[in-house]
Amino acid sequence: MITKLIEKIKQKKAPVCVGLDPMPSFIPEHIKIQSYDEFGAGLKGAAQAVLRFNKEIIDNIYDLIPAVKPQAAMYEQLGPEGMKVYAETIEYCHKKGLIVIGDVKRGDIGSTCEAYATGHIGEIEIGSMTYSGFDTDMITVNPYTGSDGIIPFLNACNKYDKGIFVLVKTSNPSSGEFQDIEAGGRALYEHVGKKVAEWGSLSMDGYYSNVGAVVGATFPEVIKKLRKLMPYTYFLVPGYGAQGAGAAELKYCFNDDGLGAIINSSRGIIAAYKSEKYKNKFSSREFAEASRLAVSDMIKDISSAAGRGD
Amino acid sequence: MITKLIEKIKQKKAPVCVGLDPMPSFIPEHIKIQSYDEFGAGLKGAAQAVLRFNKEIIDNIYDLIPAVKPQAAMYEQLGPEGMKVYAETIEYCHKKGLIVIGDVKRGDIGSTCEAYATGHIGEIEIGSMTYSGFDTDMITVNPYTGSDGIIPFLNACNKYDKGIFVLVKTSNPSSGEFQDIEAGGRALYEHVGKKVAEWGSLSMDGYYSNVGAVVGATFPEVIKKLRKLMPYTYFLVPGYGAQGAGAAELKYCFNDDGLGAIINSSRGIIAAYKSEKYKNKFSSREFAEASRLAVSDMIKDISSAAGRGD
Repeated sequence: MITKLIEKIKQKKAPVCVGLDPMPSFIPEHIKIQSYDEFGAGLKGAAQAVLRFNKEIIDNIYDLIPAVKPQAAMYEQLGPEGMKVYAETIEYCHKKGLIVIGDVKRGDIGSTCEAYATGHIGEIEIGSMTYSGFDTDMITVNPYTGSDGIIPFLNACNKYDKGIFVLVKTSNPSSGEFQDIEAGGRALYEHVGKKVAEWGSLSMDGYYSNVGAVVGATFPEVIKKLRKLMPYTYFLVPGYGAQGAGAAELKYCFNDDGLGAIINSSRGIIAAYKSEKYKNKFSSREFAEASRLAVSDMIKDISSAAGRGD
Repeated sequence: MITKLIEKIKQKKAPVCVGLDPMPSFIPEHIKIQSYDEFGAGLKGAAQAVLRFNKEIIDNIYDLIPAVKPQAAMYEQLGPEGMKVYAETIEYCHKKGLIVIGDVKRGDIGSTCEAYATGHIGEIEIGSMTYSGFDTDMITVNPYTGSDGIIPFLNACNKYDKGIFVLVKTSNPSSGEFQDIEAGGRALYEHVGKKVAEWGSLSMDGYYSNVGAVVGATFPEVIKKLRKLMPYTYFLVPGYGAQGAGAAELKYCFNDDGLGAIINSSRGIIAAYKSEKYKNKFSSREFAEASRLAVSDMIKDISSAAGRGD
């Protein structure tokens, strides 16, 4: 799978991923009103508003980017109707040729982990047929339970040509509380990083592995260390834009081949029409055009960090 | 919320939770056939089979136990139809007076974490009304991102009188890979445990806190240490039965008041009809009666561990 992602990144000349995290406050009133009129002002109406919002943004940006990252939490908060729209968003993105990274941060053990793998990057047998619950290409996973919590995902990667990104160092201020704890001269995130590289060796796909890592853009020194520790691991990098990191912080994410990382922005793109930078140029009805301009600007900004990658 | 759980535990004289983890292989053929006939042999048919299976088990055990713990992964693997059945299972359990612990092991940061809290133990405003996506009373959460990943859940606990169980030491063989890493003379799970106790002090509900901990039954020495480190923290204890731990391992989970822990069994109860112990006594059509006997046997076994608690 990582080869497919890399091909798309090269084709679009954009190591960029757009986070589809439709918080209710991001969705313009006219979409809400229209959706509530049709489906009622309840969970279904709210979920359908999300779907319309997503589709209009995707229609306006799909040609510029290789991948999107829908954030499961934003759909889950709308209950089963929200999960239906999560699945429909994935399907719509696939129709537009995008790689879909489900930001689910799942993690458990044994057969439970297998069930998550089945639901998000695998297939389930029912009668004589197989079905996909949520048909994402890659997902984010949590390493806290150790190998028992990763191997089932790894097996699904190999069986179905899919990928995962394991949380190594997250972008939030308190990420250090546990991730920076030092043991044997190394921080926990380094111990996790080393394991991710090991797991990754069991699902190589060309130069890089299908097992990637989530590494926050907000800690450049950490990125430097991890880039060295795990040369064959693709980084999914949150924290650009709204969370404060810019292109300067990002240069260490990339290998000398200009590859090795995909930078995510969520609210910076999908809520661009509300931001200081773009709000005077676009009305709330032009939210998707604002997203397109924000994507273009982001790609220009990131390209300088990625260096000689093509 | 923890007071409500404790009252139910005392009322049923059973510090026991039944895990509703309906793996496809647990569901008897006659239920599958009936459900596929009615809803088709696809994701909907499979999900409806799960719902029937759950309901028949709940009907047969609800009077014996205080709480159930549906495992989200088992529903998620059936896509949106599965999540609908997850919500319906929660609703059905509530009608039977059970406390419902959603085993979702969610964890993220900031506004994303808020969305998970909203979806599982909170409410979302739509128009002039509020709605619950998945109306669980308590959920399991993952601590890897630190306080930023816990505070939003904590706020929901306080606002809606709900509870969480934070993963501290999981029951699986590889849990030590990261959780046992030693830093400053203490294992990571102790660092996490200490933090859980701190977070817990922000949501006290009587003697105990609404912030509990997941502590695997498979490591008695660890339980001893954690019980001392976090006296006001309720433990949700997986690993009993199918994962190998018995009553002897469990005695350290409980405080001198006979409280402080709720022991979970999943497949040992819901797939009892397939186990060595019960399979000769029950046919697959009597799966729910087998579950009832397994619950009774488990309560007897656990009571000896809980000591003088009533």
